Amino acid sequence: MSQRIRGVLAPVVTPFKADLSPDRQRFIAHCKWLLSQNCGLAVFGTNSEANSLSLEERSLLLDTLIAAGIDPSRVMPGTGCCSITETVKLTAQAVKHGCVGVLMLPPFYYKGLSEEGLYRYFSEVVQRVGDARLRIYLYHIPPVAVVGITTSLVERLLKAYPDTIAGMKDSSGDWNNTKIFLDAFVRVGPTVRAARAHSSDAGSDPETDTQPGFDVFVGSESFLLANMRNGGAGTISATANLNPAAIHKLYAKLDPLRQRTLQHNETARLDLEGQQARLNVVREVFDRKYPMIAALKQAIAIYRNDPEWARVRPPLVELTAEQAKMLAAELKAISFTIR
Amino acid sequence: MSQRIRGVLAPVVTPFKADLSPDRQRFIAHCKWLLSQNCGLAVFGTNSEANSLSLEERSLLLDTLIAAGIDPSRVMPGTGCCSITETVKLTAQAVKHGCVGVLMLPPFYYKGLSEEGLYRYFSEVVQRVGDARLRIYLYHIPPVAVVGITTSLVERLLKAYPDTIAGMKDSSGDWNNTKIFLDAFVRVGPTVRAARAHSSDAGSDPETDTQPGFDVFVGSESFLLANMRNGGAGTISATANLNPAAIHKLYAKLDPLRQRTLQHNETARLDLEGQQARLNVVREVFDRKYPMIAALKQAIAIYRNDPEWARVRPPLVELTAEQAKMLAAELKAISFTIR
Repeated sequence: MSQRIRGVLAPVVTPFKADLSPDRQRFIAHCKWLLSQNCGLAVFGTNSEANSLSLEERSLLLDTLIAAGIDPSRVMPGTGCCSITETVKLTAQAVKHGCVGVLMLPPFYYKGLSEEGLYRYFSEVVQRVGDARLRIYLYHIPPVAVVGITTSLVERLLKAYPDTIAGMKDSSGDWNNTKIFLDAFVRVGPTVRAARAHSSDAGSDPETDTQPGFDVFVGSESFLLANMRNGGAGTISATANLNPAAIHKLYAKLDPLRQRTLQHNETARLDLEGQQARLNVVREVFDRKYPMIAALKQAIAIYRNDPEWARVRPPLVELTAEQAKMLAAELKAISFTIR
Repeated sequence: MSQRIRGVLAPVVTPFKADLSPDRQRFIAHCKWLLSQNCGLAVFGTNSEANSLSLEERSLLLDTLIAAGIDPSRVMPGTGCCSITETVKLTAQAVKHGCVGVLMLPPFYYKGLSEEGLYRYFSEVVQRVGDARLRIYLYHIPPVAVVGITTSLVERLLKAYPDTIAGMKDSSGDWNNTKIFLDAFVRVGPTVRAARAHSSDAGSDPETDTQPGFDVFVGSESFLLANMRNGGAGTISATANLNPAAIHKLYAKLDPLRQRTLQHNETARLDLEGQQARLNVVREVFDRKYPMIAALKQAIAIYRNDPEWARVRPPLVELTAEQAKMLAAELKAISFTIR
């Protein structure tokens, strides 16, 4: 876990067989396709229905993934459970496999938790895993987990575990919130710093060069341009399960090495904004009127011509026939296709 | 699981050792004391910090409890996890041990679930456990789980599994909600029916005699009198960990066999209301200004003179020294004591 991951990752949707067990074959095939599209694997995320899987099922699936030859430096499994003991078990397994990091939900059953309680929880997890290779990305998704990640919690954790706390995923859906974290914790990289040196508000600090940095991933590609312009690290987005190449294409133009040459160029700016707008058209189909997970799977079922993909595990339900038809029509209307 | 449980149950608080592992010895001792006070054992409830325990820890603790000779007909473990597979595993274990029922949370990670999705979830659990002895008490605790239990869900489940769906615990803290469930699902028992036959709004239906009934437990003893007057089955209450005898004393006067003789007697009515008021005085100390679980454990630590009891597992935190002192003073002021 030395080289940090950046760019586009998909919270990989989990296919199920008729008996609702994870369909390993389709899962591995989907993971390999995502990797071929420059898309990292945030397996066991919210959109993976990971919280509808047992710890044992997640553990077996992770072993299967690595055994299938998937490069662990492209894998960031979700490992946050409600209990310290389970979170530690799954996290330690991910570290042992050499996964590039873990995406960690806060414990999400008890509500109204104190910052002290959350700090103790994460602190206990870090200490119990006790491995210098561990990289934790804190997972902020208040619309689902309700329990969230605050800047003061991150501040305490970064102070105590600067090498382990590697970043966060912000799935609040609120750009203002992402901006607060970016402003508070992102130590600017050499390119951004070099660029700033040319502007009036330079303030470059050589010390930040040695800081490991805090990498902010946005939970939707609709914030990708804004995130990268503000020093973010990429996106971990549901729709990257369908549209990874186009999302990566925008990301690639925004990575720090290219950012300098692009930022003062009006044509380049318009091009970036056009690309972002085209990504948004796809995203909005899913954000607007369908339950996200069922819709993602239905779309894969359509484009792979494989109805098995549409299956979800209760308490989720698949799209109705009516919804499925409407989704297909909408995707056709915007000329969307899986490449 | 043939004879239904009624009365007072405690969501048994789980003591932890310094390494945060469950303290089996103190746990068993507390369970035995509760039983001696006519209090049933709703182990692995919200107040048990069950959602801060792994499935494996709950499973081992249940085995330990039964191995210690605890009567399973007095045990209603919480078995609702986020995944069907884990819920089935723990529920099947409880049935195998002969537990009188299970208290089942809905899957609580994903939000905005459809009734159909929740129905499929519970239905799948019932079918996978596949044991006629299974008795499920649905656990409605929206302030914590957010995902709740609706009357239309109960209606569908009761229709499909009339013998298995045994009742619910309502921890909404909203008496109006409890009343809605009581009015909708409680088939009146013989005594209430006999009493009603003497009143003008009789409407006794001989067929209901053979119905298994839907047993509503309130999540706080502050609603015990109201619940029993409306055909409820008892209470599963946090503070039953401390005050079981007094709560049971009120319950015993309210059980259906006694209800008939008491209901038209003014002195008896005033006595019941006085008892309820005295229970409320204790309850209010805990409801008012402390985090419930930490306060329960602190109170046990005080009365057992055993500071080990005060420990909680992160993400919860124990009371501050200041809070602990204030709690002790408040309990002293109302002359509360553990008997």
